[in-house]
Amino acid sequence: MRQAGRSLPEYRALRERHGFFELAGTPELCAEVTLQPVRRHDVDAAVLFADIMTPVLAMGIGVDLVEGIGPMVESPIRTAADVKRLRPGEPPAETLEALRIVRAELAADRALVGFCGAPFTVACYLVEGRSSRDFLAAKELMYREPEVWHTLLGTLADAFSGYVRAQVDAGADLIQLFDSWAGILSPADYEEFAAPYSRRVLEAVPAPTVHFGTGTAGLLTQMRDAGGDVIGLDWRVALDRAWTTVGSDRGVQGNLDPAVLLAPWEQVAGATRDVLRRAGGRPGHVFNLGHGVLPQTDPDTLTRLAAFVHEQTS
Amino acid sequence: MRQAGRSLPEYRALRERHGFFELAGTPELCAEVTLQPVRRHDVDAAVLFADIMTPVLAMGIGVDLVEGIGPMVESPIRTAADVKRLRPGEPPAETLEALRIVRAELAADRALVGFCGAPFTVACYLVEGRSSRDFLAAKELMYREPEVWHTLLGTLADAFSGYVRAQVDAGADLIQLFDSWAGILSPADYEEFAAPYSRRVLEAVPAPTVHFGTGTAGLLTQMRDAGGDVIGLDWRVALDRAWTTVGSDRGVQGNLDPAVLLAPWEQVAGATRDVLRRAGGRPGHVFNLGHGVLPQTDPDTLTRLAAFVHEQTS
Repeated sequence: MRQAGRSLPEYRALRERHGFFELAGTPELCAEVTLQPVRRHDVDAAVLFADIMTPVLAMGIGVDLVEGIGPMVESPIRTAADVKRLRPGEPPAETLEALRIVRAELAADRALVGFCGAPFTVACYLVEGRSSRDFLAAKELMYREPEVWHTLLGTLADAFSGYVRAQVDAGADLIQLFDSWAGILSPADYEEFAAPYSRRVLEAVPAPTVHFGTGTAGLLTQMRDAGGDVIGLDWRVALDRAWTTVGSDRGVQGNLDPAVLLAPWEQVAGATRDVLRRAGGRPGHVFNLGHGVLPQTDPDTLTRLAAFVHEQTS
Repeated sequence: MRQAGRSLPEYRALRERHGFFELAGTPELCAEVTLQPVRRHDVDAAVLFADIMTPVLAMGIGVDLVEGIGPMVESPIRTAADVKRLRPGEPPAETLEALRIVRAELAADRALVGFCGAPFTVACYLVEGRSSRDFLAAKELMYREPEVWHTLLGTLADAFSGYVRAQVDAGADLIQLFDSWAGILSPADYEEFAAPYSRRVLEAVPAPTVHFGTGTAGLLTQMRDAGGDVIGLDWRVALDRAWTTVGSDRGVQGNLDPAVLLAPWEQVAGATRDVLRRAGGRPGHVFNLGHGVLPQTDPDTLTRLAAFVHEQTS
């Protein structure tokens, strides 16, 4: 998971001296932060250090990232005129350069995972202005001004399609599409207001894709239909049942509750064994947490977890 | 849904003069507020006006209900000693008296729905101290001090069993067990840390029961196994698929996204028709929202919705 770094002292040391977007926007620093969890935990892949709002900055939107709150949008998007003002937005050159640096430094047997927010989740932030439990302002725009909504998501999908293609060109081996808030929608609303735009981005990727969401136990078939070679599962669903729903022609990733890592080791090991047992050694299972690493996680637990999974699956 | 009142001017007028627990703790006022939505919207049932923390006050816990935040617990429960200090707690006499008043005033063909928080959700608030997205303090206690956790939930389950029995004795025709936060748990953790205590309360009810949760699309079989004649569904799952998972020997309720009520009427009608179509007229479907009415909902939309559902199903 992308946020593995938040629990690392070496990441925090850098964050004391640099803002988030400064880190993400300076190729050497971004590459360094991307590589930190691989060095420390010996995991199989590096995940690009970026925020889902990274490509949006180039579209003329002011975003601040506030510790403990998340992205804050300076002028939330609420009208057709707001959408019209969005610039097409080139993929940020600094991010692409960071990917090149990481790919050059990373061992050949480690994957480099590119990263992009799904248009729906990014639009939730752009319309709401900040994180929210139910994103009511976003839902209200979606229901009351569907044409504004569809224009906004189309604009984002076009920009993100260029962004993911450029990431693959720069060395990403696969792309993870992050739809953190898809789970606030009913299946019917997901199909109408979110899926077409996730599909457009996923289809633009000339490489394998992971389609990630949380709270999506009731949306798995719809997410699968929107695309993704691997479907992300949070912990709110049993992996074996979810994989049956998704279908055996796709892979699945995730499933361990990040909060379990706050428990004593025996429980971490037990919960991990349970995930692996449900995966049953079938090809196409990527072990991962169901969502980001919690900042208060002991980094040594993550290192031990990575070793434990390697040991159990080798 | 219980919170229907929040959108009503007649409820707000009362709340200007009385605090929440004052309303809930004064039988005549509690009865009045319980009856308001029935009078205005002509719905088929009255839902007891109470908070999930209501029975906890009698156990010696100080709770404040803060507008826009929810329950705030004065001294969160974190240790075995904290749990030991809890008093058994008699069912609040004022609530029972309110039920008697409502039952006497309510037409014979309208149901009176009693109301009780599930031990898991109440424990989340008691340990965390207040609402939270992921209730990490509660999960940490659950993982690190399981014996404290189980003692706390056993104590709550015993108190709530007496509370629901007393509600039925006072005139409630059925009981809704409210497990708002069950959806933060993995299915395995739900079975271990929550289900036994919901089961104990549900089994104590000498009347039909509704077992309600949100974000539970991946937990439906586990919730069904814990009990409930009717299983609550939020909007994050398609009703027909969810009912198949729950099984045809149980009823289901809910499923309309409360946010849809902020949309123009045609969309409200369309989403409602979709829920009814998926229910397919099978006996055992209780039309409802998937969660509480949002405060900004136009009361006239609710009235129109109740009439529309009656018309569509008559």
